[in-house]
Amino acid sequence: MTDITASIIVIGDEILSGRTKDKNIGYIAELLTKIGVNVMEVRVVPDKEEKIINTLNQLRKEYTYVLTTGGIGPTHDALTADCVAKAFNVEISENNEAIKMLLERIPLKDLNDSRRRMARIPHGAKLIENSVSKAPGFQIGNVFVMAGVPTVMQAMLDVIIKRMETGQKLFSCNILTDIKEGDIADILRSIQGRTETVSIGSYPYYNDNGYGANIVCRGKNIDELKSIASIIKNDLSEIGNVEIGEIL
Amino acid sequence: MTDITASIIVIGDEILSGRTKDKNIGYIAELLTKIGVNVMEVRVVPDKEEKIINTLNQLRKEYTYVLTTGGIGPTHDALTADCVAKAFNVEISENNEAIKMLLERIPLKDLNDSRRRMARIPHGAKLIENSVSKAPGFQIGNVFVMAGVPTVMQAMLDVIIKRMETGQKLFSCNILTDIKEGDIADILRSIQGRTETVSIGSYPYYNDNGYGANIVCRGKNIDELKSIASIIKNDLSEIGNVEIGEIL
Repeated sequence: MTDITASIIVIGDEILSGRTKDKNIGYIAELLTKIGVNVMEVRVVPDKEEKIINTLNQLRKEYTYVLTTGGIGPTHDALTADCVAKAFNVEISENNEAIKMLLERIPLKDLNDSRRRMARIPHGAKLIENSVSKAPGFQIGNVFVMAGVPTVMQAMLDVIIKRMETGQKLFSCNILTDIKEGDIADILRSIQGRTETVSIGSYPYYNDNGYGANIVCRGKNIDELKSIASIIKNDLSEIGNVEIGEIL
Repeated sequence: MTDITASIIVIGDEILSGRTKDKNIGYIAELLTKIGVNVMEVRVVPDKEEKIINTLNQLRKEYTYVLTTGGIGPTHDALTADCVAKAFNVEISENNEAIKMLLERIPLKDLNDSRRRMARIPHGAKLIENSVSKAPGFQIGNVFVMAGVPTVMQAMLDVIIKRMETGQKLFSCNILTDIKEGDIADILRSIQGRTETVSIGSYPYYNDNGYGANIVCRGKNIDELKSIASIIKNDLSEIGNVEIGEIL
């Protein structure tokens, strides 16, 4: 079974200026990981045509899927649909089905030229409906184009994941310890040396209750994962408190 | 005055799996924007040597500065320092000054091989001290290498910004409205057509109190920014409530 991979392109000056804090990357990454689609790269790019087109064309060749967020509203700074059309070298025009979706929410008298822009869809694309704002995203080839507003993006993502080929789920197991990273690193390196199918990550934490390391094991085979987790627990229990979480 | 640009590379499987939600991108972006350094691109990449090296070598040529977060701890999955050395084609070895910094926090008897790894620094790099954990980051050429733990990263960033050449600050002004984006898009497009020095962005919001659009104007000249903001306020006041925020 081949790996199913994905990359995310977050489009928007407001993220790069820090004015808006992105909430979409973590949400998409978590959901795709759950269904066995491995997010391999994320890029945040400005509202600049050339950069958006180049990034799209590079990533859509490299990964199974590309998901974009942002830049599909009615205003002049929403460039994504046109950039996608240019990247795929196809025409873009008003899509009747998209107009119908807009009319479910917007009275005909309010459907001005700016709002009609939200129905401009690259030729050959399939719409992605959304229950929140009605204005659709779209899919063309392996690229899924979504809104930037988190609630709208999340509604679109629910539609998208049903269209995706999903891979073998990567299971993970957290092991929480109150041991300093520097005291477990040798042990973890040795255990990692014994397995090629389970990857072991270590993430230090500092909080009001003290510090320690959270170890995360990931793998496609649950039995191997359990075995490595129990070796880690066994080896670390001599130096501190170790708690194995459930396998997710 | 030339533009000072930056890109951020977030290194870590845990961000791409969604297990850890990144808190560094927004923090760095906001702080750099304040001092006139324009963040032009962000990439999140996995703990994979080839990907880290290629990304570093591409971005350090493209932007004034590159800042990385993550992958400089004592464990086997911390690859950043070695990748940076390879990207710059320099040797890497234990740095005496870095060992001294570690000893400010770590008793000599606890300074095992894993912890000593945190003192491995590419040749030619300058250390970045941090008051939180003492383990240093480093700067080589135009690349700044920081920890991934937010509190540690923030301490390092305070040191880094003093070493950066800063650009002309980009001022911004928020204009909050209770008008739907689709009703202001034509007006904003027309106003944007009249200025090349102020960029106008529109960000729809939906919350419990209703919906509307938050307009953000950005520019280097405060007078031009004020002038555009007041034109927007004037033109939109006919259709809804409009409130100009302070210029930041």
